[in-house]
Amino acid sequence: MNGSTVTLMDINKERLETIYRFAKKYSSEVKSNINFQKTMDRKEAIKDSDFVINVAMAGSHEYYEKMRAISEKYGYFRGINSVEWNMVSDYHTIWGYYQFKLAQDIAFDVEALSPDAWLLQVANPVLELTTLIGRTTKVKVIGLCDGYYTGRRDIAKALGLNEKEITFVAIGLNHDIWVTEFKKGNEDLYPLFREWIDKEYPSFYKTWYEEVKSNPLAVHVSPVMVDMYKTYGLIPVGDTVRNGTWKYHRDLETKKKWYGPLGGFDSPEGWKFYLDREKKEAEKIKNVVEDPNIRVSSLFPSEPIGLDPVVPVINAIANDKKSIIQVNVLNNGAIDGIPNDVAVEIPAVVDAKGVHIDKSYKLPTKILNFAIRPRIVRMEWALEAFLEGGKEILFEWLVDDPRTKNDQQVEEVINALLSMEENKEMAKHFRG
Amino acid sequence: MNGSTVTLMDINKERLETIYRFAKKYSSEVKSNINFQKTMDRKEAIKDSDFVINVAMAGSHEYYEKMRAISEKYGYFRGINSVEWNMVSDYHTIWGYYQFKLAQDIAFDVEALSPDAWLLQVANPVLELTTLIGRTTKVKVIGLCDGYYTGRRDIAKALGLNEKEITFVAIGLNHDIWVTEFKKGNEDLYPLFREWIDKEYPSFYKTWYEEVKSNPLAVHVSPVMVDMYKTYGLIPVGDTVRNGTWKYHRDLETKKKWYGPLGGFDSPEGWKFYLDREKKEAEKIKNVVEDPNIRVSSLFPSEPIGLDPVVPVINAIANDKKSIIQVNVLNNGAIDGIPNDVAVEIPAVVDAKGVHIDKSYKLPTKILNFAIRPRIVRMEWALEAFLEGGKEILFEWLVDDPRTKNDQQVEEVINALLSMEENKEMAKHFRG
Repeated sequence: MNGSTVTLMDINKERLETIYRFAKKYSSEVKSNINFQKTMDRKEAIKDSDFVINVAMAGSHEYYEKMRAISEKYGYFRGINSVEWNMVSDYHTIWGYYQFKLAQDIAFDVEALSPDAWLLQVANPVLELTTLIGRTTKVKVIGLCDGYYTGRRDIAKALGLNEKEITFVAIGLNHDIWVTEFKKGNEDLYPLFREWIDKEYPSFYKTWYEEVKSNPLAVHVSPVMVDMYKTYGLIPVGDTVRNGTWKYHRDLETKKKWYGPLGGFDSPEGWKFYLDREKKEAEKIKNVVEDPNIRVSSLFPSEPIGLDPVVPVINAIANDKKSIIQVNVLNNGAIDGIPNDVAVEIPAVVDAKGVHIDKSYKLPTKILNFAIRPRIVRMEWALEAFLEGGKEILFEWLVDDPRTKNDQQVEEVINALLSMEENKEMAKHFRG
Repeated sequence: MNGSTVTLMDINKERLETIYRFAKKYSSEVKSNINFQKTMDRKEAIKDSDFVINVAMAGSHEYYEKMRAISEKYGYFRGINSVEWNMVSDYHTIWGYYQFKLAQDIAFDVEALSPDAWLLQVANPVLELTTLIGRTTKVKVIGLCDGYYTGRRDIAKALGLNEKEITFVAIGLNHDIWVTEFKKGNEDLYPLFREWIDKEYPSFYKTWYEEVKSNPLAVHVSPVMVDMYKTYGLIPVGDTVRNGTWKYHRDLETKKKWYGPLGGFDSPEGWKFYLDREKKEAEKIKNVVEDPNIRVSSLFPSEPIGLDPVVPVINAIANDKKSIIQVNVLNNGAIDGIPNDVAVEIPAVVDAKGVHIDKSYKLPTKILNFAIRPRIVRMEWALEAFLEGGKEILFEWLVDDPRTKNDQQVEEVINALLSMEENKEMAKHFRG
């Protein structure tokens, strides 16, 4: 990427300044000659780009925490947004009106100002937003998530395998991916995995349990992984284990049973841990920027570019370095049994010509039926809510929910959420 | 149908004898020259047929009532089978193991013994069974239901329209059909319908309310019809109003609010009323057979062949009388947004060459998303349960159900149902 220009854009001036200085400092440390720009004007940032990376969250964590608190007041533990196969806390679907609008507006800008650019949709909900942008614009969009990479790392480590020596194909929907090929050379590793569950998991579990006492985010090898494998027949990867039915998420007690003493990533304590960590990371970045004695590299002891597929995708396309990368793109026949206009997550060949889906994948009917189809229904509902509005759609989202005791509860929670000062525009969208 | 042979088949000798005598008596009354046969051997009945009509219910109403009672003991009002968009009481899906097996076995027999025959699948669940047979056999299957016809009749009557003068196209899935075209000549009747709701429904409702005090089966013009129209945007027809979300079915009180003082067709009282009526009908048939002074025709004052599309379909195919008939067939592109291998209900041209789907229909996304897609998920789950077995599938059916308080409740109701003496074979299927 030598010689390229990276334009950072934020609506928050202070944050923009910090990350700009951070980037410049890092760049000079590693002696890159990337030209950094900064702007608070989105259109200026997007104009004439080759790649646009959307990592924005409209509102803020605080905004969603406020909606979560209101939901819980009316009996909706973890918020009305958290439903079967959408239990990941920062995956804002039904209440993501502003997030959808922002992502679509960015895509419209790309369409108008950089029609040949690749839009890398990193901000969640990747499934909904990649599908939305794929359906409603002509933009070349790729949804990207690090879940596959962190999941693969943790599973390989747990089984004592060298990540680089294995074939580990996981397909499905974002946060709902399943290992269809697990091999070392020609050797199927599923028998080894089953043996590991039977013989080693009980003692592995003890070590894991000790770890999650202080780190609730270590979920990839939780008992949910084992239980999902036994229930659905394939290994769930990455954030898939944070997902699932109410079996794992009914209440705090249930979450503790499955995800350890803090209740896992998406419990009150786990999520607070995550938000606090995010704040600390932001503080660290500020410190690095302000303290000439700290090197940026010291923040990343071993993985300077992290596990994110963003740089590999840009490298593959911009430099024509043919690579297999885990991407989210409209299905178009890649996975049997999933409609063509739904964004699937698959490993695809990426090069200067783009993303190539050169084969057709299959999922067992059990996974299609119980993990994929219900998730697609919720995705369609969230898109319908955003595209069409109508208060009755919010009602439909909740009427069959196991947390709902009666219609009044649904009416009340919807009204409370739409009455928030921050939700004026959203209320207009839904109430007409 | 002059000169044709109709073979009646039943595993119950007494019932077979009664219906055989009933048919012969009616035939002689109307001076038809149909040749009636009877047999208790299914294969004999099916061999060399042009049409096979499956109206069989495996087990009996009592068997399903027993499963319903056990379900209710564990907190599942109206049974584990009754879930969102499958609230019709005799539509046995997840607990329909024997019903699915019987229907598939009949289809296999048709495939082997009368491969050119048309199989008319009248027994419910028409959606599941038509799809199952369409997917797993080469049989020419048509699912048939009278819901469209009785619904059209009742709606036309309520609005003071002559049924014969209107275009009334309803499409979707069986028990989940919606009026996409409602016209008299070129005049769209939807404005008239809206006016009727605003101006006349309040007084119409009072008359309706008086009627359902003694006849809980009068549901087609219940407030649910109006509410579904307002929620989803099109008129629901026939048994569609008995369906829907938990909004209409959460508990007896809710059912009474929507379906009148007895709680409608699919309430404890309503369903008992229906089963009692069925018993009385059977008694009447017995009486007619045994009493030479009663004519069969006296049982059908005005509609000798009822509203069922069975005879019209046979007439259209056998006599090449081109007709438009409401049928259930695999979609194959008939309705946009529904997979090709799902049985849809549509009006189709039927003649000697079969069923012709010569146009493509569209449903509003709101109906596709909220009424059709969730129903297809349940259909797929019921088929998976039948084809693959596995106790975990019964668990998945209930884990996200609003009636479920915890996993133990699910385990207990499943174990109680599978422990029934009648369910030995079913238990083996699910427990392996």
